[in-house]
Amino acid sequence: MPNINENYLKLKAGYLFPEIGRRVKAFAAKHPAARIIRMGIGDVTEPLVPAIIQAMHKAVDEMADRATFKGYGDEQGYAFLREAVAKNDFQARGCDVAADEVFISDGSKCDTGNILDIFGGGNTIVVTDPVYPVYVDTNVMAGNTGPLNDRGEAQGLVYVPMTAENNFTPAIASGKADVIYLCSPNNPTGATLSKAALQQWVDYARANKAVIFFDAAYEAYISDPAIPHSIYEIPGARDCAIEFRSFSKTAGFTGTRCAFTIVPKTLKGRTKSGEEVEIHKLWNRRHTTKFNGVSYITQAGAAAIYTPDGGAQIRQTIAHYMTNAKIIRESLTALNMKVYGGVNAPYVWLQTPAQTTSWQFFDQLLSQCHVVGTPGSGFGAAGEGYFRLSAFNSRENVNEAMTRIKERLKV
Amino acid sequence: MPNINENYLKLKAGYLFPEIGRRVKAFAAKHPAARIIRMGIGDVTEPLVPAIIQAMHKAVDEMADRATFKGYGDEQGYAFLREAVAKNDFQARGCDVAADEVFISDGSKCDTGNILDIFGGGNTIVVTDPVYPVYVDTNVMAGNTGPLNDRGEAQGLVYVPMTAENNFTPAIASGKADVIYLCSPNNPTGATLSKAALQQWVDYARANKAVIFFDAAYEAYISDPAIPHSIYEIPGARDCAIEFRSFSKTAGFTGTRCAFTIVPKTLKGRTKSGEEVEIHKLWNRRHTTKFNGVSYITQAGAAAIYTPDGGAQIRQTIAHYMTNAKIIRESLTALNMKVYGGVNAPYVWLQTPAQTTSWQFFDQLLSQCHVVGTPGSGFGAAGEGYFRLSAFNSRENVNEAMTRIKERLKV
Repeated sequence: MPNINENYLKLKAGYLFPEIGRRVKAFAAKHPAARIIRMGIGDVTEPLVPAIIQAMHKAVDEMADRATFKGYGDEQGYAFLREAVAKNDFQARGCDVAADEVFISDGSKCDTGNILDIFGGGNTIVVTDPVYPVYVDTNVMAGNTGPLNDRGEAQGLVYVPMTAENNFTPAIASGKADVIYLCSPNNPTGATLSKAALQQWVDYARANKAVIFFDAAYEAYISDPAIPHSIYEIPGARDCAIEFRSFSKTAGFTGTRCAFTIVPKTLKGRTKSGEEVEIHKLWNRRHTTKFNGVSYITQAGAAAIYTPDGGAQIRQTIAHYMTNAKIIRESLTALNMKVYGGVNAPYVWLQTPAQTTSWQFFDQLLSQCHVVGTPGSGFGAAGEGYFRLSAFNSRENVNEAMTRIKERLKV
Repeated sequence: MPNINENYLKLKAGYLFPEIGRRVKAFAAKHPAARIIRMGIGDVTEPLVPAIIQAMHKAVDEMADRATFKGYGDEQGYAFLREAVAKNDFQARGCDVAADEVFISDGSKCDTGNILDIFGGGNTIVVTDPVYPVYVDTNVMAGNTGPLNDRGEAQGLVYVPMTAENNFTPAIASGKADVIYLCSPNNPTGATLSKAALQQWVDYARANKAVIFFDAAYEAYISDPAIPHSIYEIPGARDCAIEFRSFSKTAGFTGTRCAFTIVPKTLKGRTKSGEEVEIHKLWNRRHTTKFNGVSYITQAGAAAIYTPDGGAQIRQTIAHYMTNAKIIRESLTALNMKVYGGVNAPYVWLQTPAQTTSWQFFDQLLSQCHVVGTPGSGFGAAGEGYFRLSAFNSRENVNEAMTRIKERLKV
């Protein structure tokens, strides 16, 4: 009988969102008449914009004709998309990123997990707290941690807290680090890293020869022109950073599946004997051996956001969500709640009223207002006492949820 | 500086197909007027059938409307597709496979690589020779092997030869085995495993508590009603087998990306201390944590092959390719070549004329006939002296290639 990967047995039984799902299902079964408004999971609600729809219809038609049919494409993605990404998302901001450093994939969740395949054991890994759970779980699966402790922390990872006390800016790791996960705009706190803060991390990473995994899945939601969209806006980042991006939130692709990862050719890792190895070559090998490219139709749709029409259309959708975020922020502030985020990110991160834990607040909000959010403690111990509300919704639902909270919530 | 996964450094620099690409590119540069016919890589050429196109257009339109828009779906796939697969591909053949044992993915290449994530070290792994290179490379990456030897074999894997001498039926492994890769219809030989041969492997696996990874990506090409399409047609297979399937060759999805893997709930692995663990739970955890589902549009297209129209249409395309295979078989046989496969698989596997190595034959065929095939030795040492021709092509190209071989090939 084959040995299994026993690291999987260290994982907690329930990922955050399944547990939310279970509680909502139980509530709905008891209260079938309740109209539940879901502001929990960060899933988009608005349709794909016309330019994308048009591009995908055209691509479907190409697949129907032998002359334009597409079989296997390059695993790394079509040149038309890699070039559009390099030019519009990076070069236009002064970032030195070439098309062949762009790896098109089917999702950032996949990429942030799969990237660990090319790294070895024995690395010191830094994550923030709260943290996107996939960073931790995939390190557990890869054997980079010990068991989980009572707080749900994976032993062996270095957790750097982000709370109101430090303005949600993680302090530079004090010891040695090999891999550092940063997410800005942040999921779940909605905070962003300033240029100065990011420069400190880049300087630290270069001094320590660490690699930063920079997750910028929400960069399209940045409204403040001073906030960097890419880590490559920071001098020196090409020597120390991999960046993860996604069309999921930028263009409503959560059900359409397209993302990309930037691996600069200048980035190095090392063997145990000290030999330096190009990370780009390793990722290229993984990507071509264990992945087979993204659907042509999907890539054609993604490329449409780089046209003038497509760009204007997705910015309208993003503006819709960010107006939702503003309504949430202002409504909760008027109720004397402490709220963070929601300015450069589609997430509002609120402090639960005194004495209330994140899960208690979840249950109150669900039972009193029939509104679902995400308990901050689900993202890590330092998230206890916080709660995430997502701006991904219709205006009607957001207004209705805020009215219910104002009228019915008793904490 | 982070440690890298040094297993990647054991891999050979060039995967088979990149090397073919390099030689073809060099030839084309020297002979710009030559019209090269590609019968090498196993990529489909015929367009998606009307039922799929129609379903995808409809799905694209659904994504354009807030009322029917789809965000995140279940990572394991939409129920409509999982149920159609379970019913049509398995239950209709008397196989006991439930919808929740079907995991929809973006490709079999991905699945056959990723499946190793949930298994541990120290397993004895059996592959055939010749073999689909991804099975070997992903085991190298996972650290399940030593370095490669001169024959390109990964030390530590158990290779079971498949040649004309044993009718391309791998002999039952003689020692202990934990994981066994079988591919039927076979890539590259085009051979199939009979019910009796497969029963022997299932019996062996059950007796040895091994797991069979059964790759049936080409099952739709089986014409002989006696040949099993699924390993679950064999009594006992639910206790010892994972099956990989794909829409790539069945429905022309190489550029559209959809596949699925069957993991029976009855399948077990074990911890080092001997505790039994359900493989289904581990794969479900991997699939939900490191993958985020297949595009709704793609899944809607895939489901169309289970409609009467869609089914009839894909069978027509498959018949087209299999007529190509017949033409290749008969043409080469008429030239006194020894050919195998091409009856229940879209690959013809020919013996290269005496004294000619696989790569020599590749170069001859390219330079004399401007036809590209795949050297058998690229699939393993026992593939030396064999050569793969793919039936995925237009009729015109196949006829033209056969004419050129007849008129120009001098070996």
